[in-house]
Amino acid sequence: MSTHRPVILLTDFGIDDEFAGVCHGVVLARAPGTYVVHLTHGIAPQAVGQGAIVLRNTLPYMPVGVHLAVVDPGVGTQRRGVALECADGRAFVGPDNGLLFPAVQVSGGAVAAVSLESEAHRLTPVAPTFHGRDVFAPAAAHLAAGGALSDLGPSIEPASLQQLNIPKPRSYGEWIEADVWNVDRYGNIALLLDEPTLRSVVGDARQVELIVRNDHFYATLAGTFANVRVGEILIYVDPYGSMSVAVNQGAAADMFRLEVGQSLTIRAAAEPTP
Amino acid sequence: MSTHRPVILLTDFGIDDEFAGVCHGVVLARAPGTYVVHLTHGIAPQAVGQGAIVLRNTLPYMPVGVHLAVVDPGVGTQRRGVALECADGRAFVGPDNGLLFPAVQVSGGAVAAVSLESEAHRLTPVAPTFHGRDVFAPAAAHLAAGGALSDLGPSIEPASLQQLNIPKPRSYGEWIEADVWNVDRYGNIALLLDEPTLRSVVGDARQVELIVRNDHFYATLAGTFANVRVGEILIYVDPYGSMSVAVNQGAAADMFRLEVGQSLTIRAAAEPTP
Amino acid sequence: MSTHRPVILLTDFGIDDEFAGVCHGVVLARAPGTYVVHLTHGIAPQAVGQGAIVLRNTLPYMPVGVHLAVVDPGVGTQRRGVALECADGRAFVGPDNGLLFPAVQVSGGAVAAVSLESEAHRLTPVAPTFHGRDVFAPAAAHLAAGGALSDLGPSIEPASLQQLNIPKPRSYGEWIEADVWNVDRYGNIALLLDEPTLRSVVGDARQVELIVRNDHFYATLAGTFANVRVGEILIYVDPYGSMSVAVNQGAAADMFRLEVGQSLTIRAAAEPTP
Repeated sequence: MSTHRPVILLTDFGIDDEFAGVCHGVVLARAPGTYVVHLTHGIAPQAVGQGAIVLRNTLPYMPVGVHLAVVDPGVGTQRRGVALECADGRAFVGPDNGLLFPAVQVSGGAVAAVSLESEAHRLTPVAPTFHGRDVFAPAAAHLAAGGALSDLGPSIEPASLQQLNIPKPRSYGEWIEADVWNVDRYGNIALLLDEPTLRSVVGDARQVELIVRNDHFYATLAGTFANVRVGEILIYVDPYGSMSVAVNQGAAADMFRLEVGQSLTIRAAAEPTP
Repeated sequence: MSTHRPVILLTDFGIDDEFAGVCHGVVLARAPGTYVVHLTHGIAPQAVGQGAIVLRNTLPYMPVGVHLAVVDPGVGTQRRGVALECADGRAFVGPDNGLLFPAVQVSGGAVAAVSLESEAHRLTPVAPTFHGRDVFAPAAAHLAAGGALSDLGPSIEPASLQQLNIPKPRSYGEWIEADVWNVDRYGNIALLLDEPTLRSVVGDARQVELIVRNDHFYATLAGTFANVRVGEILIYVDPYGSMSVAVNQGAAADMFRLEVGQSLTIRAAAEPTP
Repeated sequence: MSTHRPVILLTDFGIDDEFAGVCHGVVLARAPGTYVVHLTHGIAPQAVGQGAIVLRNTLPYMPVGVHLAVVDPGVGTQRRGVALECADGRAFVGPDNGLLFPAVQVSGGAVAAVSLESEAHRLTPVAPTFHGRDVFAPAAAHLAAGGALSDLGPSIEPASLQQLNIPKPRSYGEWIEADVWNVDRYGNIALLLDEPTLRSVVGDARQVELIVRNDHFYATLAGTFANVRVGEILIYVDPYGSMSVAVNQGAAADMFRLEVGQSLTIRAAAEPTP
C-alpha cells in the first residue's frame, strides 16, 4: 500500500475532454503510486460558488489527503495559485478565488499557506489557460508524496486568502427566500437553506406554500421521497443538510424551470378550514 | 500491492454530480489502499432491471472483489440493505431489490448473507436518500479490507433474497417478440433474446423481417458490422451474448425510435421469388 | 507501491455505457495492482484522427506506462491489432489504423512491434465487436505486469505500421486555411495550425480577419482570455500548442457553428485608416 496521501480532484472540466485525465496523469507521473479520487468534474463551468459548496460538503467523506480543486475563471490573470496545509491534516491546492475557503474552514483553518511560485514544481512553460495541468497538479503531487509545503513558493498569510460570500436566506415576515445552488441529475433542487432556519419561519408546519416567480405551489416537508405520493412536491433535508425541493418520481427542476442562482420563497401553508 | 479486494462500483448516479466520487472517497477513507473500478454510473435512473443485467453480464470480466451496486428506487423505505459472499469468492453489497440477484446466481449463489444493520459499519446519521454513501460504501470497504461479513449485521437466509424477473421472449407462430433492455452510445439496441432462442424460431435464415410498432423492416443476421453495407440494418450477437439490432455506421435507436422497455418482433424473411 | 507500469486508457467509448469500466476490470483482473488512468473516453465516435492527436498531445504529461487506445471503426475486419514498445520506455496497444502513429513518433519510434495473435493473451471467444475488452485490454495487462512483448504474437516490422495523414494548413496568398480538429466543453475551437505557421502568413498582426463559410469576423491574437473583453473573439495558443479560436466567456463553436473536420480561413486585418 502506498504511503502517499491520496489526491482528490474537483473541477469544472467535465469529462468529454481529456483535461481531468491529463491532471491525473501528471499526478501519477510525478508521484507514482498515488491513489486519485475523481470526486467530480461536473461543477458548472466557472461556477466557483457551486464548486466551493460541493468541496466543503463532501469533505467529511473524503480520506485525509490532498484536495486538488480547479474552478478558475481567472486563469491567466494575476489571481494567485495557492497551497495550504490545514489543522486536520488535509491539504488544498487551487486558485485563490474563494473556491477553497469554505472547505478550509471546515478543516480547521490553514496552519500554513504558500503562493505557488516555485519553478521547480510547475511544468514549463506554464500554459496561460491550463494551470490545472501545469501548476496545480504538480503541486498536489509534491504534497501527496510527502514534499514540504514550503518548497512550493513563498509563505503567505492564511488570513489573506480570498473569502467567499455564500448568499444567506432572507426572511420577509412569514416568508423566507432562499437561493438554488445545485440541481442534480434527478432534477432535485438544493437550496442555500438549512432546516433550523426554515423551521424558524414555518414552525412545525408539515405543509408549505412555495412561490416560484409568480406561481404558487404546495409542498410537504418530508423525511424522504417515500413519504409522499408519486408526483407530489416535497421538501427534504438532502444528504449534506441542505433543504432540497423534489417531486417524487419526477424532476422538480423541470416543473419549476429553476436554475442555479435563482431563488424561491416559502411559508407555512394555511391550515384548511375545518 | 494492496492485499485488499478491489471494489467495483455500478450505479445509476451518472457522473454530473459528485455521488459516485463520494462513494469512492468513503471506500478509500475506510479501507486505505483499495483499488476502485468505476464499472459504470450510466444505468438509467432507477432502472433496476437494466442494472441487474449489466452487473451479471460484466461479472466474468471483473477481478474477484467486492461489488458495490446501487440502483435503489426504494431508498428510505423498508427494503433491506444486504451484503453477500458467493461461492466464487466475490462479494456483493447493495439494496435487496433484485439488482444483485442475477449476478449472484452467476457467482454460484450466496454462501452467506446479512442484513446491513450494524451501526459500527455505517455513517451516522444515515441520510434517508443516500444509502450508497452511508450504508453500502462503508460495508463494501469493510469487506474489501478483509473484514468479516458477520460484522455487518444479522445473518439472513440467502434464499430470502429478492429475485428479479427478466422478461423472456414470446413466440407467436413464426414470430418472436423480445424486449429492449439497453441502448448504447452508438444507438445499438440490445434485446432480451439469445441466439439459440432466435434460431429456434427463424431457423438458419440470413434475412429477417422486423416489426417495430406497425412498421416493417428487413435486417441481416451478421457476425459484425463489416458484414453488411453502410446504412444496412443488422442483428448480431453482442459482446455479452444478447441479440442486438444495429445500423452499420448509423444509430438504430434513432431509426426505430425504440427505448428500453419497448419491444420488437422478428421472423424469417420470405425468400425472394426466383 | 506496485511495480507495474500504469495503464492509460483513451477511447471513443463515452462513459454512459460500461465499456470503459469493463476494460479497467479486465486489466485489474489480469494484472492485479495496476494503476489505471482514464485519460479520456470522449473521443468522438470512430474519430481516429482526433484520437490520434489527443494521444500524441497528452503524451508528455503521462507517466511512462502502457497506452491502451481504442478508436476502432474497423473492429471485426482484417485490420491488425498491434502492441509496440518505444524508445522512451512507453508501450502502446490498439488497432493498427493510424491511431497510435503520431504518439509513437513522439515516443521516439517503435523498437519492437507485434501483431496481437496469441490465444493465451486474449479472452476467448473474441467478440467481433469488442476487441477493447477481449484483445487489447489483456495485452495491455500483460505488458503492464512486466510480460514480454514477444509473448503477444509474431513480430512485425515497425515500419509497416499504418500511418496517419493529419491535414496541414493551406495558404492562399495572404490567407491561410486550417481545419478544426477539436471542440472542447467550453466551445473553444482547436485548429490544425501552430503559431509559427500562422505567423508566417499574418506576420506580427494583433488583429486578424476570419472567414467561416461566407461570414467575416475580426479576432485578436491574445495570450489568454483575460487579454480581451467579454464577448470578444480571440485566437490563442492552446495548452498543446494548437491555435484555437475562442470567445471570452462565450462559446465560439456555437457562434461559428463549426464542427470537427470543417475549416476556417485567417488573414491579417487591414490596419484601420488613421
